Amino acid sequence: MSQSESVVTPKKALISVSDKSGIVEFAKALSERNVDIISTGGTFKLLKDSGIPVEEVSSVTDFPEMMDGRVKTLHPKIHGGILGRRGTDDEVMQQHGIDPIDLVVVNLYPFASTIAKDDCILADAIENIDIGGPTMVRSAAKNHKDVAIVVDASKYDDLVKELDEFGGIKASTRFELARSAFEHTAQYDGMIANYLGTVPAETPAAEVPARTDFPNTFNSQFELKEVMRYGENPHQKAAFYVEPGEKEAGISTITTLQGKPLSYNNIADTDAALECVKCFEEPACVIVKHANPCGVATGASLKEAYQRALSADTKSAFGGIIAFNRELDAEAASAIIGTQFVEVIIAPAVSAAAKEVVAAKPNVRLLACGQWGAAKPALDFKRVTGGLLVQDRDLGKITPADFNVVTKVAPTEQQIKDMLFAWNVAKFVKSNAIVYAKDGLSTGIGAGQMSRVYSAIIAKIKAADENIEIAGSAMASEAFLPFRDSIDQAAETGITAVIQPGGSMRDNEVIEAADEHGIAMVFTGMRHFRH
Amino acid sequence: MSQSESVVTPKKALISVSDKSGIVEFAKALSERNVDIISTGGTFKLLKDSGIPVEEVSSVTDFPEMMDGRVKTLHPKIHGGILGRRGTDDEVMQQHGIDPIDLVVVNLYPFASTIAKDDCILADAIENIDIGGPTMVRSAAKNHKDVAIVVDASKYDDLVKELDEFGGIKASTRFELARSAFEHTAQYDGMIANYLGTVPAETPAAEVPARTDFPNTFNSQFELKEVMRYGENPHQKAAFYVEPGEKEAGISTITTLQGKPLSYNNIADTDAALECVKCFEEPACVIVKHANPCGVATGASLKEAYQRALSADTKSAFGGIIAFNRELDAEAASAIIGTQFVEVIIAPAVSAAAKEVVAAKPNVRLLACGQWGAAKPALDFKRVTGGLLVQDRDLGKITPADFNVVTKVAPTEQQIKDMLFAWNVAKFVKSNAIVYAKDGLSTGIGAGQMSRVYSAIIAKIKAADENIEIAGSAMASEAFLPFRDSIDQAAETGITAVIQPGGSMRDNEVIEAADEHGIAMVFTGMRHFRH
Repeated sequence: MSQSESVVTPKKALISVSDKSGIVEFAKALSERNVDIISTGGTFKLLKDSGIPVEEVSSVTDFPEMMDGRVKTLHPKIHGGILGRRGTDDEVMQQHGIDPIDLVVVNLYPFASTIAKDDCILADAIENIDIGGPTMVRSAAKNHKDVAIVVDASKYDDLVKELDEFGGIKASTRFELARSAFEHTAQYDGMIANYLGTVPAETPAAEVPARTDFPNTFNSQFELKEVMRYGENPHQKAAFYVEPGEKEAGISTITTLQGKPLSYNNIADTDAALECVKCFEEPACVIVKHANPCGVATGASLKEAYQRALSADTKSAFGGIIAFNRELDAEAASAIIGTQFVEVIIAPAVSAAAKEVVAAKPNVRLLACGQWGAAKPALDFKRVTGGLLVQDRDLGKITPADFNVVTKVAPTEQQIKDMLFAWNVAKFVKSNAIVYAKDGLSTGIGAGQMSRVYSAIIAKIKAADENIEIAGSAMASEAFLPFRDSIDQAAETGITAVIQPGGSMRDNEVIEAADEHGIAMVFTGMRHFRH
Repeated sequence: MSQSESVVTPKKALISVSDKSGIVEFAKALSERNVDIISTGGTFKLLKDSGIPVEEVSSVTDFPEMMDGRVKTLHPKIHGGILGRRGTDDEVMQQHGIDPIDLVVVNLYPFASTIAKDDCILADAIENIDIGGPTMVRSAAKNHKDVAIVVDASKYDDLVKELDEFGGIKASTRFELARSAFEHTAQYDGMIANYLGTVPAETPAAEVPARTDFPNTFNSQFELKEVMRYGENPHQKAAFYVEPGEKEAGISTITTLQGKPLSYNNIADTDAALECVKCFEEPACVIVKHANPCGVATGASLKEAYQRALSADTKSAFGGIIAFNRELDAEAASAIIGTQFVEVIIAPAVSAAAKEVVAAKPNVRLLACGQWGAAKPALDFKRVTGGLLVQDRDLGKITPADFNVVTKVAPTEQQIKDMLFAWNVAKFVKSNAIVYAKDGLSTGIGAGQMSRVYSAIIAKIKAADENIEIAGSAMASEAFLPFRDSIDQAAETGITAVIQPGGSMRDNEVIEAADEHGIAMVFTGMRHFRH
């Protein structure tokens, strides 16, 4: 605490909370420290029943509770008490019998929970919009020079400690509390705006609205996790934000076990690697470079999976991001550390022995993200100049049961496995994407070409450079093959099975080509452009 | 208007606006329609001085204005009047002398303007946070069943028309107004949270804060422009949002002159094409496919620029996005329409004659975005699972004055031009990017490879397929060349000049290689990863 920092010793607190966790203990602690408490509604009852001395707001305002509580705190005796400038307004406050309120403890019932109910009619949603609460929060936050505003139950203990240690609440604490307060109201009104923005204007109050998919304005709030040294390039500043609340295990839930801070590109690439490796059931490894998987493999062990993935593109793997779908063990860790320069290793968990192995290279970023469950629906964004494209996250998933065999030859069981593997990789390769795979190994990955045929060409060239045998592989194309040329080329490369969405105007021609070459081909009916 | 729609005929309006445009006329119109007006502060004075009958809020509340107006409207007589449920609370309202207020006209002084001032001390920013205004806006919006809330001066005329036509304000209008109201308060508190989130907690109130680059929470609001049929893939829903306020001419300012609705991928690709073509001074054309430029050229005319750009990659251009940096003329339009299938044509403007030409292909999306000026700083986003990477938009720009010649041979004037051209294209090619260029034409574009050397290989293969002579071209690499192999390969391809950021640990080796081959090489000191 700086010498000059002013401390506010609360004499009167206004408490009105939706989230009641810890409130009795906190109120009791305040009361024991000679803080008078005023309260409303359910909070008042709870505190009173808990034997804590508490006064009702209506007796402060001398105005009865009316309109089912719609206006109970919207009164000068309350807001004058919160907003009055100590040292400036003291006289006028006294004159009007306004007691200063120097601690406000208010949080809002999460609007998202109200509207999450399937049977939430419009009138219920509207009724749940709190007016008095946000006003107290905002008043107190504005006047943080003299008032502390608490919107978060997790702060109670620290505040009691601060009261005991400093005899009051410090200016810097009050400022941080005020910032949290406006973050709380911004999120609250953002949620309301997002909801109302999906409700057709003609919806009767008594009906569950037939909501649109996208609101009239898109309001969002993300929480700062880390400021990076720079962005995608050194002349760009950057920061990493995460969604509020519970997050799916992934890049936003990482624990850094060792290594240098993550860069912007590390985070983006690690996300890509991790999301790809989540697709596999068997022990699997994905190596990513420049946002694309360069080697993907399964194996009997993580070590084998890694070594196979590396073999697919030893050149690109240098300085890459390596992701696993099992707890990282010492064997896999040793294989990496003994073989290559690596930027990031990530797995759901890391064994103590693996940690020790990686410790030999202290710069390597070793991350654990926790075990993931099913992927959660979410919104995906793409920034454009002056705007934002918003879309559903690509959660499209297929199983062999969805395969539509369109050729005379049906795929063998092994080919089905290879096709599914290639497909799961192709989803994470920048479009146009061509992926060859065999026996749980990516035998060739062609990424990011403006013409699909060049994705096939580059995949083949790279495989040849790595002495990988493509012949006998399955081929996945993340979007339909427009012409038969891709099949002719695939046949020449020794491809025996093809998986693609289908849907080209020339599907017949493409199927004919596959039949001519004796290639088994399945249509998925689902595309996975990723740009 | 539906038969059942309830109409609210306002009897009493509360007017308190920061943006006073049109308010006198609106208040006059209300007054002439027998609406009593109550008001505060500057608005009260303005209306009174304009000869409009108006009552001051303090005489309604019977509570004096105090604390420099901090609490003037936070009173049950005001909020009871706004929030009271007609038909339910009538008796209690009467009992307490509360008159219903059925029209609230309030807008908030934009907090962004306050803090935009370089000398804005923390105390001034805080003082500018409005408490009473947002509370009235939110109260009225909550009670839109009985109250109309207007936060936007552009609505005044329509409301007067509606009063005259329907004798009041319709339920659907009141709902839409309420939605706008919460959008207004969400944006307002979002701005405050973003500001406070960049202010160090220890900042004294009398000082201009030394703000951080990124706020503690990142709050944003975008406005819906269009809901698309689907997203990047058919199983993803999608919408296009734009920033509020003035936008830089680009994809967010387009006027669709003809054609089918834009798809998600159209918008993303058109943005890439347009931002790339903005880099050129001479008449220029950029053709984009799958987020990458596939052909870029300048020319004496747009037609020539188009034909040259097309020649660079005739195969990929099929179904592409074509952007120009001049008003589209009939000659260029004819050249396109007569030659190829095109999804989108965009230019700052389109001549009447060009429109006529394109009309022959009614499905082609023809867009005008307006003339752009200098690019504006903005934030760029990349979505990851559970989080968001935020960075400065890449506005890095270099001129030949920034070229650092590192080889014995200095580039010729023509080579300098070619290098700059190649560099401006490479900025918009997905990393790793290698671009060859000569005489204002991209002679080879290698995009999106996990190893840089394969970007060079694929660029060369494509050029050969298109019968483009690369020899004599300049080569741009958007990030440093890590090894001499790229230079050896470039020499073999006939490259005579190389532009790259420099900064590899092996720069000396790379420079040596260039010197051996008699290649002129410049370092830019600036990287342009784009993933």
